[in-house]
Amino acid sequence: METATQSKFPLVVIVGAGFGGLEAAKSLADKPVEVLLLDKHNYHTFQPLLYQVATGSLEAESIAFSIRKNFGQQKNLRFRIAEVNSISAETNTLDTTIGDIKYDYLVIATGSTTNFFGNKQIEHFAMPMKSIPEALNLRYLILQNLEEAVLQKTKEAREPYLNFVLVGAGPTGVELAGALIELRNHVLTKDYPELQTTDMQVYLVDFMPKVLGPMSEQASGKAKEFLEKMGVQVLLNKKVESYDGEIIKFEDGQTIKTKSVVWSAGVMGVVPKGIKQENILRGNKIQTDGISRVVGTENIFAIGDVAAMITDETPKGHPGVAQVAIQQGKQIAKNIVHMIKGEPTEPFKYFDKGSLATVGRNKAVADLGKIKFQGFFAWLVWMFVHLVSLLGFRNKLTVFINWVGNYSNYNGGTRLIIRKYEREDQTEEQHLPNTVN
Amino acid sequence: METATQSKFPLVVIVGAGFGGLEAAKSLADKPVEVLLLDKHNYHTFQPLLYQVATGSLEAESIAFSIRKNFGQQKNLRFRIAEVNSISAETNTLDTTIGDIKYDYLVIATGSTTNFFGNKQIEHFAMPMKSIPEALNLRYLILQNLEEAVLQKTKEAREPYLNFVLVGAGPTGVELAGALIELRNHVLTKDYPELQTTDMQVYLVDFMPKVLGPMSEQASGKAKEFLEKMGVQVLLNKKVESYDGEIIKFEDGQTIKTKSVVWSAGVMGVVPKGIKQENILRGNKIQTDGISRVVGTENIFAIGDVAAMITDETPKGHPGVAQVAIQQGKQIAKNIVHMIKGEPTEPFKYFDKGSLATVGRNKAVADLGKIKFQGFFAWLVWMFVHLVSLLGFRNKLTVFINWVGNYSNYNGGTRLIIRKYEREDQTEEQHLPNTVN
Repeated sequence: METATQSKFPLVVIVGAGFGGLEAAKSLADKPVEVLLLDKHNYHTFQPLLYQVATGSLEAESIAFSIRKNFGQQKNLRFRIAEVNSISAETNTLDTTIGDIKYDYLVIATGSTTNFFGNKQIEHFAMPMKSIPEALNLRYLILQNLEEAVLQKTKEAREPYLNFVLVGAGPTGVELAGALIELRNHVLTKDYPELQTTDMQVYLVDFMPKVLGPMSEQASGKAKEFLEKMGVQVLLNKKVESYDGEIIKFEDGQTIKTKSVVWSAGVMGVVPKGIKQENILRGNKIQTDGISRVVGTENIFAIGDVAAMITDETPKGHPGVAQVAIQQGKQIAKNIVHMIKGEPTEPFKYFDKGSLATVGRNKAVADLGKIKFQGFFAWLVWMFVHLVSLLGFRNKLTVFINWVGNYSNYNGGTRLIIRKYEREDQTEEQHLPNTVN
Repeated sequence: METATQSKFPLVVIVGAGFGGLEAAKSLADKPVEVLLLDKHNYHTFQPLLYQVATGSLEAESIAFSIRKNFGQQKNLRFRIAEVNSISAETNTLDTTIGDIKYDYLVIATGSTTNFFGNKQIEHFAMPMKSIPEALNLRYLILQNLEEAVLQKTKEAREPYLNFVLVGAGPTGVELAGALIELRNHVLTKDYPELQTTDMQVYLVDFMPKVLGPMSEQASGKAKEFLEKMGVQVLLNKKVESYDGEIIKFEDGQTIKTKSVVWSAGVMGVVPKGIKQENILRGNKIQTDGISRVVGTENIFAIGDVAAMITDETPKGHPGVAQVAIQQGKQIAKNIVHMIKGEPTEPFKYFDKGSLATVGRNKAVADLGKIKFQGFFAWLVWMFVHLVSLLGFRNKLTVFINWVGNYSNYNGGTRLIIRKYEREDQTEEQHLPNTVN
């Protein structure tokens, strides 16, 4: 069993090295605690740029941040690759894939995963994009489908391989649609002289009447305009009925033949077993009080996407964005120290820095409080914010160099199929030889 | 069926985009032929630097060269991801994973794969390192074993995770041993403060009495000295008897407990079906005449590692190195054009540029004809030669930047476990959670 070491400091176990967990771990450096950070990967993922990994303009490594390499110097922190099987609040024990762990304080920062709203068929055939392995799978699928398209003899046979349908017009869907259409407009016929630009189509679908739902009307309208000018087919007020790997059907009867459906239409919290059912709210979020403490517990906290902080000021919780997780991570660290010292805790207060989304080169939308702007300047702000938010100098530099390179000729990125993507049931259908060994 | 297009030029099908196949394809640009290049990957692999991918100091993408991106401009070339099932020499037809292909000239440039000399147990448990997916698997295995080591409570339990045994002391084994021991000496305790440098051991094993067999006594002796000074345990005149995933046994009775055995003790040609058995020589190489033509055929050629060019001057063929493949690729292109024009062909003559191997920072050995030197200058030459040989400006730049970065602090590389490596039979044993999704 992992426990606190010989030190007399209490053990804070943080589950998840996303934005919230990592911030909490950092903020506890030099504090009178021991920190044990757990994650299923040995790296932190900068999720806002996953879509650029999927389209091949950035390599996975440049948006991943090695936990050991970067936290080796924090003396009071240990890191383990592990997943939590269940929490036993009565005994202050975690049952994990590396054995039992006894905690003094527990921070649940497990984030969210793709929500298919119970549709098993769509879950099986559509591609999620919430992790690096998922983004890479999507990249390989896109490239494999372009290769398959080249092998087809007729335009009709090529169609399903060249129709890309993105469901969910939040920032992920919008940014991925923009990146895919730029790939089509600037790279497709260079790499595949056998194909025509117009052979490939990108559809962005949402059941709501607008893209970028939570942003201003102005941002949302302009983003749609940008996308359509670039050639994306934006389909709003459209609900998906089914997708069987070949044809996506909408409730209004429309169908699109496609081998590639990307699902970013919703997320749900990743709640470890052992949290009382009554404390799990809509979207699989754990209900917490104003200091991120799980309702009904003394020393268990939940922050970020997995948490719903329900207070008089925030009856619906906070939006599922990185800034909430980061600010909660910082606050929770402070409050744990307060609790240890027997001092009063300070309630969390979210400082909304605003929203940004990029659509393509020179095109982004920004809502910064009352200031709303779109286009080139918003795009510069988007790039700046993402560069400074990326952890680590190496990653900042790599991404910056890549962006400069891509800007000069659109043709950055390597577009290699390193590991072929195969659905578990795929065997005979696929023409591409199995390149995984 | 893929055939020549409407053009009246004969179709040259090249199977394999390694050093030889790629050079042949390039050399046929602007010649009166159509070229169809096939490979199971959509990229060329710069194999000499695979070991740096395995140890995490280079990313896979920087030693892979996208075929479509870089050959998009060659008008007479088409590329397809495909593998050859069999050749029918009588009908000039290839049976491939993308259907039948009728060729006028066929160039077999399928290279070599790891030779386990028929030992199925070793093949199952040892790691090969001949392709990018294999190098990545090895990287993940190394990192996973370090993570497992941290979880063990006793030095004895940690041992098998921290013993790395490399079988085969050719350039691959030597270079990998050097890179691993540098990882141990400079990174291990930074990333894993729980471990001690001396906990990790690197063994380099060969059944021959020297490392770098085909190189000069001087080079070989100095390489061994470099390795041992850095801490590698070099075990010569030692034959492997068995490896069951836990313990490697040698014929002299010695055993080492280890979870990581890397096998680079031999290669064998990858010969497509349909080549007459009588033309397949030792090491699975296809016998060719002095113009790389497969014995007994008119229009089928074999070059590089899969070929054994047996002539009076070269009764044993050529060494299995990149330069032979490159020079044969160039020559075969010339000769195909000669044959088309009804001109006499020119026999191949290998120009030996010499051999280089690196052991570590500031340490390499070089045999350039009669000039033999070792140490810092050899290392500079090694770096220069590898940088200029890397295809593509982007790759040269990325590798150069990485090397400069690594030189300044040894601590380059990202060391992420993006896809967990699992042997097919592994299920319960492993502690690490499954991180592949």
